[in-house]
Amino acid sequence: MAKASPVSPLAPKSIPAMPAVEGVRFATAEAGIRYRGRTDVLFALFDEGTTAAGVFTRSKCPSAPVDWCRANLAGGRARALVVNSGNANAFTGMKGRQAVELTAAIAARAAGCRPDEVFLASTGVIGEPLDATKFEGVLENCAARAAAGPWIEPARAIMTTDTFPKVATRTAEIAGVPVTINGIAKGAGMIAPDMATMLSFVVTDAPIAAGALQGLLARGVETTFNAITVDSDTSTSDTLMLFATGKAAARGAPAVAEAGDPRLGGFAEALHDLLRDLAQQVARDGEGASKFIEVRVEGAVDDASAKRIALSIANSPLVKTAVAGEDANWGRVVMAVGKAGEPAERDRLAIWFGDIRVAVDGARDAAYDEAATSAYMKGQEIVIRVALGLGTGRATVWTCDLTKEYVAINGDYRS
Amino acid sequence: MAKASPVSPLAPKSIPAMPAVEGVRFATAEAGIRYRGRTDVLFALFDEGTTAAGVFTRSKCPSAPVDWCRANLAGGRARALVVNSGNANAFTGMKGRQAVELTAAIAARAAGCRPDEVFLASTGVIGEPLDATKFEGVLENCAARAAAGPWIEPARAIMTTDTFPKVATRTAEIAGVPVTINGIAKGAGMIAPDMATMLSFVVTDAPIAAGALQGLLARGVETTFNAITVDSDTSTSDTLMLFATGKAAARGAPAVAEAGDPRLGGFAEALHDLLRDLAQQVARDGEGASKFIEVRVEGAVDDASAKRIALSIANSPLVKTAVAGEDANWGRVVMAVGKAGEPAERDRLAIWFGDIRVAVDGARDAAYDEAATSAYMKGQEIVIRVALGLGTGRATVWTCDLTKEYVAINGDYRS
Repeated sequence: MAKASPVSPLAPKSIPAMPAVEGVRFATAEAGIRYRGRTDVLFALFDEGTTAAGVFTRSKCPSAPVDWCRANLAGGRARALVVNSGNANAFTGMKGRQAVELTAAIAARAAGCRPDEVFLASTGVIGEPLDATKFEGVLENCAARAAAGPWIEPARAIMTTDTFPKVATRTAEIAGVPVTINGIAKGAGMIAPDMATMLSFVVTDAPIAAGALQGLLARGVETTFNAITVDSDTSTSDTLMLFATGKAAARGAPAVAEAGDPRLGGFAEALHDLLRDLAQQVARDGEGASKFIEVRVEGAVDDASAKRIALSIANSPLVKTAVAGEDANWGRVVMAVGKAGEPAERDRLAIWFGDIRVAVDGARDAAYDEAATSAYMKGQEIVIRVALGLGTGRATVWTCDLTKEYVAINGDYRS
Repeated sequence: MAKASPVSPLAPKSIPAMPAVEGVRFATAEAGIRYRGRTDVLFALFDEGTTAAGVFTRSKCPSAPVDWCRANLAGGRARALVVNSGNANAFTGMKGRQAVELTAAIAARAAGCRPDEVFLASTGVIGEPLDATKFEGVLENCAARAAAGPWIEPARAIMTTDTFPKVATRTAEIAGVPVTINGIAKGAGMIAPDMATMLSFVVTDAPIAAGALQGLLARGVETTFNAITVDSDTSTSDTLMLFATGKAAARGAPAVAEAGDPRLGGFAEALHDLLRDLAQQVARDGEGASKFIEVRVEGAVDDASAKRIALSIANSPLVKTAVAGEDANWGRVVMAVGKAGEPAERDRLAIWFGDIRVAVDGARDAAYDEAATSAYMKGQEIVIRVALGLGTGRATVWTCDLTKEYVAINGDYRS
């Protein structure tokens, strides 16, 4: 069912050189879960002492691997990560739990650790039992081959309807000692032809305690992965995990136990930047996307209100189809502000497409230049800015346009 | 910009014969607001003693006519209604308020009543000033021609992207005296190519006080017009009004002052049935619709929770594209249940397409017949039923599928 699509026109023009992260080795393999002729499993090994943090889907019907990870995060320690594509192991009942347990057992044996130090993620078809016996032998083999690179391989192995692999890297200093942060992500629709979801895994060699790591991740996700939307649909499997091997301690980096420790300022900033990079890559690979849209809302009563308004705009099918049609249809932006249910005063509202103010004081801007706006809308990156004039709350979210190709990809027209 | 579209394949097969409603006369005209060669204004006159009730968009940025109607409803009396298509008079600032005042003044003069007995609705482009001077002469002329029928004319005059006029009629008895209820509606997207919204006007000859009328309408709307969705986008102009001329009193119908009066039982039921009929016609005319979808949720913790889950399913682009593709993709239904944020337990969930149970106890139904399901999905009317197994809450909502034509209609691809 997964159709070969051309690479998104919004893909980054180049793939960054990814350095190794000390304490992390990995390999990918063809386990034959669903796809043929491509890798579909990632096995990563973390050195002893690695801490873990994670944020997961808010779905009330999470997948079996999400349940598993949530339970194991309490321990705060990680030695292995198994990610497969092709099957989400979601809505698979008792069989799903058994598949998770078997996968963790095979992985623990291959990694030489306890099953509760293994983290799992699956992406792909919902409702089909995952045959975990396919991992027998495969994970042992991966462990034998595990190496510190190349990082593009895990990014490829976890793809479903993605049209390009998503990687990012940053460096920071903790008390003057350089540390590295690498991340990979996948996702194209929140859930796609049957398969797809948002998964992201980030690793660093910084020595950060699990509790602090969780604090950094929770803070970082709100304005990055939780600020993107493709189609407003939330997967049963969304997973973002952050692992810290602590290997930079040998080079003098101090162990940090609190997320608020001022020595983590630069690290937190670099992590946030990396998460935003990966999140934007997911929006840029939105199914059928032809334009990347940034929605900025300012002057709301508070940041949370600004974000709800921004998401209302970014999720509106009518705003997204207008952008696809290169139509600066600010009336639909007004509609989306109005339906958000947040404080807004029609007569204070102003709206810009790029730098062109199209509406002000509750009416069309008399000075608005239709030709300049039309030219702007032909671009590949569209910024919609809304000023509410009520307070200092602000938020930015990212999305893509809604095209016929989205419907074609997800309509799965049966012949 | 309004393109001529073929009539929706989901349109009712026949238009009902609409009787007159005593105390109501109307005429339509070509005021040249935006369209050429079609009527675009409806002027209705109500006899003295007519009461009024209304429910309006919850948008925080309502149109000028919505503000006007809300203010005048306090009086509870109506003598005239002016509805125009082609321009929504929304987000038009001070000019919008002036246009509303001028329209009401012209209408009051033509009807021989006070401006605050005039109700107004506009649908069409947002953000363009409405030139109310175009109503000069036109409304006087309508008043001179006003008649008790034919009812299809007002339904036609208020259309924007609708592909068919929407009318319905019912009768009921109040204390043994027959009364009539007639209604018209328009709407195709919640907001469309630039223009469109949901408007509906219902009139009856029953003698019901304004307060009671408001109670009946508020109760009736929740499971009818507030239970349909085309694209989750809420217009700035949504308006549903109910007028009661009281003329049936001359035939012996008692004046009723309380919505809870048991003598209104049959009337309330007939009104509810008419509102549901009109609301379903709007969903059947959803932009680009090829299938009509009924979503039934049962076993929720309460009715409100059931409705939020049902709307989450009905608004999901992935569920709607799957139905367009004739794919019984229950994994996406699970996803939509999960993202609703309402109590749900994966392992108690069951899902049906029509009478075919496809999932049960948190996993695929082993007995599920793929061929029979595929055959069912080829139909034009699709019922998706979800049982949560938690309580007795239930709700039903109606929507349509999401097709490439929706994107084409709303993308307004500029050449």
